[in-house]
Amino acid sequence: MIILGLDPGTATTGYGVIRYLRGRVTGVCYGTITTPAEDAMSRRLLTIYNEIDEVINRFRPDEIAIEKLFFGRNTTTAITVGQARGILLLQAERHQIPIGEYTPMQVKRAVVGYGMAEKKQVQRMVKEILHLDHTPKPDDAADALGIAICHAHMRGGL
Amino acid sequence: MIILGLDPGTATTGYGVIRYLRGRVTGVCYGTITTPAEDAMSRRLLTIYNEIDEVINRFRPDEIAIEKLFFGRNTTTAITVGQARGILLLQAERHQIPIGEYTPMQVKRAVVGYGMAEKKQVQRMVKEILHLDHTPKPDDAADALGIAICHAHMRGGL
Repeated sequence: MIILGLDPGTATTGYGVIRYLRGRVTGVCYGTITTPAEDAMSRRLLTIYNEIDEVINRFRPDEIAIEKLFFGRNTTTAITVGQARGILLLQAERHQIPIGEYTPMQVKRAVVGYGMAEKKQVQRMVKEILHLDHTPKPDDAADALGIAICHAHMRGGL
Repeated sequence: MIILGLDPGTATTGYGVIRYLRGRVTGVCYGTITTPAEDAMSRRLLTIYNEIDEVINRFRPDEIAIEKLFFGRNTTTAITVGQARGILLLQAERHQIPIGEYTPMQVKRAVVGYGMAEKKQVQRMVKEILHLDHTPKPDDAADALGIAICHAHMRGGL
């Protein structure tokens, strides 16, 4: 099974693709979709819409995992992140791919075993779990891989 | 010029279409896009995406006006409204329609002449300005018409 993890944002949306097979996960690809701050918001959302479409068409994920945010940010940020998140959910639905939603705490618990873990610990564990040579960069891509791993964990096993 | 006003929400998105010609506005159509609470969020966003596409194709607006929200709501609501708003901005961009964004205070000032006006006053003035028989219902549709009127106002004159 191919799982696509997504860390939504209008400036940077991280994505991470993993393969989950017989209780083991391996890394397939990761990266970011970035949009220029000087573009209008609607143009940035269209860029995210088009680029995530390409990622989905390229890797054909069976399931998508996305970060669920519901506290600790101000409302302006929340609206902006919500706009990017809406585009990602829309594309998952258009491609009829089942979606799992996880809080940062669930991701930390699944990846590090501890819900209050530091972001850096999550990134190091992502590297370990996927047997990568280095910690994935940028952070948004590493976070997206963490979300994908969390989904595999929740699907039963690891 | 045809202006489409939009009041975003995942449960109910209000829309209002007006004609703005030689400094005068007239009502063309108004309504709401509603999505069932029992549907998954991604499904609800796809419904909004499809239905707003139909509205745009039917009325071919020259410009779109949308409510700008940035305070006074909790972050959970902000993320949810942001998701619906993102879909509307995306469709405006896909159809290459210029977008104007207005705060509730700007709408009140343009429609009633007073930024702290009550919602009910805005709705009554929308009825007056557009020479409608009754106050438009539901509220989300009336609000969307108010946003469209605000845009006409800002475009220069009424």
